[in-house]
Amino acid sequence: MRRVAVIGVGMSKFGELWNMSFRDIVISAGTEAIEDANLEGREIEAMYIGNMSGGRFISQEHISALIADYSGLASINVPSIRVEAGDASGGVALKEAYISVASGIHDIVIAAGAEKVTDVGFAGEIMDSTIDQEWEAFPGATLAGLYAMMARLHMHRHGSTEEDLAMISVKNHRNAVNNPKAQFRREIRVQDVLSSPYTAEPLKMLDAAPISDGASVLILASEDVARKYTDTPVFIDSIIQSSDFIALQSREDILEMRAVKTAVRKALRMAKCDIGDVGVFEFHDSFTIAEMLLYENVGLCSSGEGHLLVREGEVEIGGRYPVNPSGGLKACGHAVGATGIRQAGEIVLQLRGDAGKRQVDAERGMAVNIGGTGATAVVSVFRR
Amino acid sequence: MRRVAVIGVGMSKFGELWNMSFRDIVISAGTEAIEDANLEGREIEAMYIGNMSGGRFISQEHISALIADYSGLASINVPSIRVEAGDASGGVALKEAYISVASGIHDIVIAAGAEKVTDVGFAGEIMDSTIDQEWEAFPGATLAGLYAMMARLHMHRHGSTEEDLAMISVKNHRNAVNNPKAQFRREIRVQDVLSSPYTAEPLKMLDAAPISDGASVLILASEDVARKYTDTPVFIDSIIQSSDFIALQSREDILEMRAVKTAVRKALRMAKCDIGDVGVFEFHDSFTIAEMLLYENVGLCSSGEGHLLVREGEVEIGGRYPVNPSGGLKACGHAVGATGIRQAGEIVLQLRGDAGKRQVDAERGMAVNIGGTGATAVVSVFRR
Repeated sequence: MRRVAVIGVGMSKFGELWNMSFRDIVISAGTEAIEDANLEGREIEAMYIGNMSGGRFISQEHISALIADYSGLASINVPSIRVEAGDASGGVALKEAYISVASGIHDIVIAAGAEKVTDVGFAGEIMDSTIDQEWEAFPGATLAGLYAMMARLHMHRHGSTEEDLAMISVKNHRNAVNNPKAQFRREIRVQDVLSSPYTAEPLKMLDAAPISDGASVLILASEDVARKYTDTPVFIDSIIQSSDFIALQSREDILEMRAVKTAVRKALRMAKCDIGDVGVFEFHDSFTIAEMLLYENVGLCSSGEGHLLVREGEVEIGGRYPVNPSGGLKACGHAVGATGIRQAGEIVLQLRGDAGKRQVDAERGMAVNIGGTGATAVVSVFRR
Repeated sequence: MRRVAVIGVGMSKFGELWNMSFRDIVISAGTEAIEDANLEGREIEAMYIGNMSGGRFISQEHISALIADYSGLASINVPSIRVEAGDASGGVALKEAYISVASGIHDIVIAAGAEKVTDVGFAGEIMDSTIDQEWEAFPGATLAGLYAMMARLHMHRHGSTEEDLAMISVKNHRNAVNNPKAQFRREIRVQDVLSSPYTAEPLKMLDAAPISDGASVLILASEDVARKYTDTPVFIDSIIQSSDFIALQSREDILEMRAVKTAVRKALRMAKCDIGDVGVFEFHDSFTIAEMLLYENVGLCSSGEGHLLVREGEVEIGGRYPVNPSGGLKACGHAVGATGIRQAGEIVLQLRGDAGKRQVDAERGMAVNIGGTGATAVVSVFRR
C-alpha cells in the first residue's frame, strides 16, 4: 500500500443555489480543485463521487456517468463511481478513492461529493431515508426525533442542558463567519437558539444543520506523483469505515456510537498516533447533539462529559480540541453527499495553513463523517 | 496486486417477489453464497452492494447500513458500501470489491447486488433516471425510446430486421428454461415477439427485459485464502470499468459503445487473452438491440454484422460464442442493481461446471454489464 496525498481542494459555495443545476455545482467545485492541484483534466484516472439521493432530489440516478460526461472525463473513458451511505456518502467515497490510489491501481483520482436539494419541497422526508424505513420512519420516527431521544437521554443521565447544545451551534456560527464558502456567515447568540422553535423536543431549529446545495472535490495522488505537483501535500495517514445497527432501537446504548468508536481506534492505530496528537477536527454536527456525542465517542473526553468540554471552551478555535473551524454542517452547510469531502477539504486547508482567519495551528487533523444516526462512520486522520 | 477468486455464489429467485421485502431478498441470496463458500459470516471483512434506486423504489437510502445490519455484519462493525451506476451498479460494486481484495486491504469480501422494484407502480419512469434527465428524459425521451433509435439506425444501415432481434429474445427464453432461478422459464416463438405490442417502435414488449425483484451475492477472496475454502476457485482475471457520454445525442455514432470497447480492450489485455479464448458470455440485454450491439462492440463480429451472428446460431449454447446461457436479463430477469453480480455468478457456475442443463464447456468467461444506454460499462474476464 502506497501513501496517498491530497494535492487539490475545491468547493462550491454552500447554500440555496437556485441558479445552479446539480452539474453546474459539481463542475464549479471540480474546476477549483483541478486549478488548486495545478493539473489538467486528462491526467485524472478515476472519479469517486458521494451523493445521497440524486434519485429523489433531482430524479437522476447514474450521476457518476452524468458527472464524468460534464467534466470531460467521459470523453477519455475515465471510470466514475457513485457511492452512497446516507450523509456519510462523501466520507465513503473518499475512502474508496483512497483505496484506489493506495493500491497502486490509479495515480491521480478525484474524490467528490455533491448534492442538489432545493429542486424539491420535501427534503426533510428524504433525509429520513437514512434511517430504517420499515422499523423507524414508517412507524413515525424522524431523523430529528431520533437525535432528540439521544439528547433527552444525555440530559437525563449526565445533566447536560439545552444551553450546552445551543453553545455548539453558536460556536459553529462564529467560526463560519471566517469561511467564505459557508452558508451562514453570521453570529448567533445562545438566546437565538433557545428561542427558535422546537423541531423535536429538546432539539430546536437552530440545533439542526440546514440541508444545502453544494459540492466539494479533492484530488488525491500517490506520494511520488504528489511531490511533482505540490510542495505542500497533505497525507491521508488513515481512513477507516465502520458500521453499527441502523435502527436506534437495536443498539445497546443509544449514546454509544459503536461505529465511530471502532473506526477511531483503528484510524489512530493506522496513523500511529494518539487523539492528543490531533490538533484540528471536523465533526458531523447534523444536530448539535451529534457533535456533542462525537466529543465523547471519539475520545476528546470521557463518556457523559461532552457538555463540560463545551462549557470550558475546549472545542473553540484556540481551545485544546478545535472542532469545526469551518462552521461545521450547522453553519458551513450540509450538502449531504458533499459533507464528508468538505470536512476533509477543511482539514487539508488547515494543515496547509490556507484557512485564513479561521486558521488553527496543527500538524494532524481528523474528520468524522456519519450516516443517519451513526450506522455508518468514516474517520480519517491527515498529516501535513 | 493479488489474484482474486470467487469462492461462493448465491442468488435469490428473480421475479415479482411480493411476499419478500428488500432485506429478505438480500439475505436469501447472501445465505446461499455463504453456504456455498463454506465460511462463517464473521469471516467477512467488507461488503459492497450494487443498488440502483433504493431511494425511489423503497424510500430507503443508506441501504449499505441496512444490509450490514440485517446480515449480522454491523454487529462486528464491518464496513458496507453501496455503489450506484444505473443498471451497471452490480458490475461497479463487483469491481470495487475486487479492488479491495486485490489491494491487500481485505481477504474476504461480499460483492452483492439487489433491487426491490414491485413496491412502486412507476418502475419504468425510475429506469429512465439512468439517462440524462435534463437533456433526454425531460424533453420526452425514454430508455426504450433511445434504444429504439439505435435499433432503427442498425436496421437502416445494416439491413437487420425485427425478426433478428426477436430471435435474441427467443434464444434467451430457451436458455432460461434450464435456469431454476430465472423469472421466465418458458420458451417463446419469434411470432410471439413480433406480435407483442410496440413499446418504442421497432422495439416491442418482448424485446425488453422485465424489471424484477432479486439479489445476487458473490464471495471474493484472495488466492491463498480461496484455496483453503474451495478446490474450484474461479479467478477474476480482469475487471475494467469505463465511461461514455451519458446522452445519446453527444455520441459521434450511436451504434458505437465506446465505454464497452475501451473496457473490453483493457480487460482482454489484463487477462492476457483474445476474445477467441473466451468460451461463455453474459451480456447486458436490457433490450434485444443492446445484446446485438454488444456482439459487435465486444468484438464477437465486425460492426454491422451482429444480426448475422444471430441468424447463424453462433450465440446459442453449442455455438461459437454462447451468449446468456442463464437466459440473460430478458428471461432470467433484470433485478437492476443485482444484474452485474448475477451475470458474474452465472459465469462462475459455468466455469465450475455447476450450470446443470445449461452447461457450456469453457475455460474462460466474460460478463458485460452496462448502465443506461452505455454511459457506464463494466467488463470482466473469469478463468477456472
